[in-house]
Amino acid sequence: MYRIGIDLGGTNIAVGLVTGEGAEARIIRKRSVPTRADRPAAEIVADMAAVCREIAAEEGLGAEDIAMTGIATPGIANHDTGVVEYANNLPFRKFPIAAELGKLFPCRDIRIENDANAAAWGEAVAGAAAGSENSVMITLGTGVGGGIIADGKVYSGFNSAGGELGHMVIVAGGRPCSCGRRGCWEAYSSATALAAMTKEKIAECRASGRATLMEERAAADGRVTARTAYDCMRAGDAAAAEVVDEYVRYLACGLTNIVNIFQPEVISLGGGVANEKDTLLKPLVPLIYKEQYGGGVVKSTEIRAARLGNDAGIIGAAMLR
Amino acid sequence: MYRIGIDLGGTNIAVGLVTGEGAEARIIRKRSVPTRADRPAAEIVADMAAVCREIAAEEGLGAEDIAMTGIATPGIANHDTGVVEYANNLPFRKFPIAAELGKLFPCRDIRIENDANAAAWGEAVAGAAAGSENSVMITLGTGVGGGIIADGKVYSGFNSAGGELGHMVIVAGGRPCSCGRRGCWEAYSSATALAAMTKEKIAECRASGRATLMEERAAADGRVTARTAYDCMRAGDAAAAEVVDEYVRYLACGLTNIVNIFQPEVISLGGGVANEKDTLLKPLVPLIYKEQYGGGVVKSTEIRAARLGNDAGIIGAAMLR
Repeated sequence: MYRIGIDLGGTNIAVGLVTGEGAEARIIRKRSVPTRADRPAAEIVADMAAVCREIAAEEGLGAEDIAMTGIATPGIANHDTGVVEYANNLPFRKFPIAAELGKLFPCRDIRIENDANAAAWGEAVAGAAAGSENSVMITLGTGVGGGIIADGKVYSGFNSAGGELGHMVIVAGGRPCSCGRRGCWEAYSSATALAAMTKEKIAECRASGRATLMEERAAADGRVTARTAYDCMRAGDAAAAEVVDEYVRYLACGLTNIVNIFQPEVISLGGGVANEKDTLLKPLVPLIYKEQYGGGVVKSTEIRAARLGNDAGIIGAAMLR
Repeated sequence: MYRIGIDLGGTNIAVGLVTGEGAEARIIRKRSVPTRADRPAAEIVADMAAVCREIAAEEGLGAEDIAMTGIATPGIANHDTGVVEYANNLPFRKFPIAAELGKLFPCRDIRIENDANAAAWGEAVAGAAAGSENSVMITLGTGVGGGIIADGKVYSGFNSAGGELGHMVIVAGGRPCSCGRRGCWEAYSSATALAAMTKEKIAECRASGRATLMEERAAADGRVTARTAYDCMRAGDAAAAEVVDEYVRYLACGLTNIVNIFQPEVISLGGGVANEKDTLLKPLVPLIYKEQYGGGVVKSTEIRAARLGNDAGIIGAAMLR
């Protein structure tokens, strides 16, 4: 059985032809075209349909041969109606994207889901959380994204806008967040936040005359990123280790909240910071197990690095149900 | 159709005979006996069965006439197996309570659920959240309890221990919580926390020579409760108003987190503090709407006082599915 998954982003439209069921789902062909998000919605959909036709034709297939086409889209995606209610960085306002795609690519079944939710579903079907009914995916990137799988289904609330786990305050009155609140988890645990903490530590070292590799590394790179502190820690820099330690403690705080709220079987961590894999997980997991409610009495959530990388959205979209 | 709901608490076993479907569900007979929680589990179950038989017999019914008996129990209740995995204040360790009750009260269908979840389900079926598929109940009592209804079902995670919403940290490193963490929502928004904040303000007033009605009121009552600050605020005391204001801000912080995470159609507030009803809700709700993610774009969660009071657990248990 062939399915298509479309991961619609602000920059690119990535389309994959997917075969295999459940944990065996895999992409056999993939194509990406620029979104050019400043165009009218109809033009974006026309490009989505064109890539679907192309990728299917290369396997000798037509739209009628595709069992399902799923769209992972930014914003508020109503999976019951196929309408994108709103997207921040794309020209969608109550836009019936499933129906519009169906006019140009008449696949018998077209579904939609929010992109973070679709990625979480991809990991739940064929990635780090495969085989579990209850899982949460957290993406540590520009922001902190979240996707909730509850009892074998994507959970998105009554208005399709749920799962904004990064906008859970963990430090009331703390760091300002882009959403307008103060102290959101995103303001402490995103890659952006890690870079900001790194900059603060460099400034602090400079002010106190303390030497740190991070200063040289930032000068050499021309910028501070989420990798600066991790790389300098690996090179033995004590100030960098302090930044990582602080970052990990806030990340553990938010993840322990997620455990206490959801008791998911698996939490999978994606996004740039999660590329640190064991360097991130080793100090992180014991902090969560130590603090979680009912620790020692209940079975513990597994904390894992996500496995599908950038393909999670395509696979999740293709496997929507 | 007759059902029985049992709300098993550390102090009392409350049993209700329930008729009516969905939002029409209501208790037509109710009986309560002491739990005497220091007894063996078998004796507690024998009393539960005896009260079920009595209450049914008074309507001329036997166990075989009862469509379903539901048990709301403290602790970790596995609703798939009918086993209480663990309870803090009752002698249950991997105790098959549904099967044991069935031996003494052979009702054809016996189900179990954690008590906070059962209360949330009761409010979702026949109380403040009736008609919604996605709701959350928060109980502001000795602790902050939570129950999650996701897509028309009680959500309790892979290990039946989910929904510990009070143990979400909102102030990293903040007030100590009984669970061992610091800064849990429970340490700011329970009735216990409100009384603690009131005591602190009284001490602060005393130290600075500021007059407050709360001092006299506490002396007259012989103790400080969650009502002290509210009552004195109504009597015009400025220091009391400051306590209430601080309490409401932390409560709003946690509730906004719940909105951002779940986007439930309804959040119902139960427990002692929620008896303040509009005095609590009027300043609270605008704070949530102002801070929630996507405010103005998405439909907003309704924040309501719970409606079933102490009957929520019985009705929720009786209506389990």
